[in-house]
Amino acid sequence: MPQNIVPDTVALDDAQDSVIIIDQTLLPGRVSIIGLKTAQEMYDAIKRLQVRGAPAIGVAAGFCLYLLMKHSEAEDPSSYIKELLEKKEYLNSSRPTAVNLSWALNRMEKCARNIIDNAGDTDFSTLRARVTDALRLESIAIRDEDVEMCRRIGEHGVTLIKEGAGILTHCNAGRLATVQYGTATAPMYLAHERGMHIHVYCDETRPLLQGARLTAYELSSAGIETTLACDNMASSLMKAGRIDLIFVGCDRVAANGDAANKIGTSGVAILAKHYGIPFYVCAPITTIDPATPTGDQIVIEQRDPDEVTDLWYKERMAPDGSHFSVYNPAFDVTDHDLITGIVTPAGILRPPYDQAIAGLFR
Amino acid sequence: MPQNIVPDTVALDDAQDSVIIIDQTLLPGRVSIIGLKTAQEMYDAIKRLQVRGAPAIGVAAGFCLYLLMKHSEAEDPSSYIKELLEKKEYLNSSRPTAVNLSWALNRMEKCARNIIDNAGDTDFSTLRARVTDALRLESIAIRDEDVEMCRRIGEHGVTLIKEGAGILTHCNAGRLATVQYGTATAPMYLAHERGMHIHVYCDETRPLLQGARLTAYELSSAGIETTLACDNMASSLMKAGRIDLIFVGCDRVAANGDAANKIGTSGVAILAKHYGIPFYVCAPITTIDPATPTGDQIVIEQRDPDEVTDLWYKERMAPDGSHFSVYNPAFDVTDHDLITGIVTPAGILRPPYDQAIAGLFR
Repeated sequence: MPQNIVPDTVALDDAQDSVIIIDQTLLPGRVSIIGLKTAQEMYDAIKRLQVRGAPAIGVAAGFCLYLLMKHSEAEDPSSYIKELLEKKEYLNSSRPTAVNLSWALNRMEKCARNIIDNAGDTDFSTLRARVTDALRLESIAIRDEDVEMCRRIGEHGVTLIKEGAGILTHCNAGRLATVQYGTATAPMYLAHERGMHIHVYCDETRPLLQGARLTAYELSSAGIETTLACDNMASSLMKAGRIDLIFVGCDRVAANGDAANKIGTSGVAILAKHYGIPFYVCAPITTIDPATPTGDQIVIEQRDPDEVTDLWYKERMAPDGSHFSVYNPAFDVTDHDLITGIVTPAGILRPPYDQAIAGLFR
Repeated sequence: MPQNIVPDTVALDDAQDSVIIIDQTLLPGRVSIIGLKTAQEMYDAIKRLQVRGAPAIGVAAGFCLYLLMKHSEAEDPSSYIKELLEKKEYLNSSRPTAVNLSWALNRMEKCARNIIDNAGDTDFSTLRARVTDALRLESIAIRDEDVEMCRRIGEHGVTLIKEGAGILTHCNAGRLATVQYGTATAPMYLAHERGMHIHVYCDETRPLLQGARLTAYELSSAGIETTLACDNMASSLMKAGRIDLIFVGCDRVAANGDAANKIGTSGVAILAKHYGIPFYVCAPITTIDPATPTGDQIVIEQRDPDEVTDLWYKERMAPDGSHFSVYNPAFDVTDHDLITGIVTPAGILRPPYDQAIAGLFR
């Protein structure tokens, strides 16, 4: 286990040919750091959500493909590419809908092809070593870019935090979904690193309890004062004067600033407006989608009723029968007029968002 | 088991010397109707929350004390009163802080004393039979008054419901907390009885899930279309146009109309105001307290962190440690300016509430 108390969510141990991850399926009960060596172990770790969160999956995929090709014994370019494609497709099939997974794997493939295509008549064993080196650097670049993106969100976001602030967050847009810092949590970690005293309130985030299991774990483990509350307690916290500002992550931001995020986010924003508390969305540039005009065009996934009616490993705690049903949307859309600012790596966007977002992509 | 699908929460079976209750600790998984015969069984049922909800506990206590004294063999007034006080104190010690429990038991004692004190020189065995009869009638009166109070709230509340309405409620202010109808649910049951089509959305109501376990159970069992949602989904439901009005119960209403109710209620009221949806509080007269000027004077109980961190019979799903804490208030206060109306047995109070409430007690 790395020496820092809160290790990186995903790391490369090149000497041991291992991708090192925190097994998130065991959190918060047990912090188990595991090494992935074989293709099967890598596939299972992604499929079973031992590593989760779009950016973290992308970084893990890069490291995995690098290690799987590191000891390739292919003797010519075409068999090397064939082997790479097989391993890439195998990894990619672990979570077919995870965009960052295929994005990172495609980027690795492109890197390898680029070296091979421009190799001229280099001897293949020399070339293979050069490709291996390029893949290593590319996978590290994917990691570094993620860390840098989060750090920049943190740098901009921390300017919004005053000493002693109470901060509310919802779901987990934390370091466990990235490599370091997270998105919504990045301003908090930077404030803490700089010696500021903050107190973070985590919505537990039903039905899957990411706030309780992940965010409250990672922040309190890092030494940040953390209080867990049920989702329906946010109004009480705000009324009691405990919340000075709110940071949340997002899954997609439309061109007008409407932001889709974990179910419950729009309710927090409405409460914040009622109590006059600033509400900030933290967004990597990749989540801002100028091709989606408004939140109305964002389709919301309805999830399995069991998530609501059956908690973790226990008996059903809701009724059943012909007159009974469950409402379980994964996300909701927060109207842009409820958002005080959108914190991006490129700076903090302010209303009117249609102009700010258009400017970002000009 | 009684023939109606949804039996009364508490009933008297005089022929069998039993108080009949639905064992609420087994809901919604199992509907078990049990008879309480001995003092020990009665004590345990109240203590273990097999019967719960202030009005239901009061009604149960009346029936219990009547049955325990029904076969008294006391041979003079003073030994009869001594026996009654012993049994009363035993029952009362099952939940010492339940106001309705001691209220009902005191009322029963007063009834017995009243007969004995005005008996003149009646032969004691004749007198004892007369007291027994009076206790029976008094316990039935306590039940009937509860049913009537709920029915009247329902009569007033049902005037607010339009055919096809979507109705949101929070926690359980339902028939399981009373004998029939409930308070917040009374308008729904009456609408259903009259053949109106309604669809009720139940907040699950973390941490103790009364909405999921009790409200969703009792409404869907009665044939009302019922959908369960996590607390953080209320904003999404309202935005989707599914909610036409909201009924909630209350624990106390201050003189200015501020209403304390289960944690999360104030958040629902703020969302309702944002979306322009009417928000009604259903209140027995006994919960309206003109001696409490505003909600600021209502002390909110903080409850055990375990309720949030440990769900039903399972492993902990939150972190632990020196930087971690839990916020778990039992109730919150909804500001009077968020309340569209207060539905009481005497009619629907409208703003300004200070005048409406003063008028009610004039």
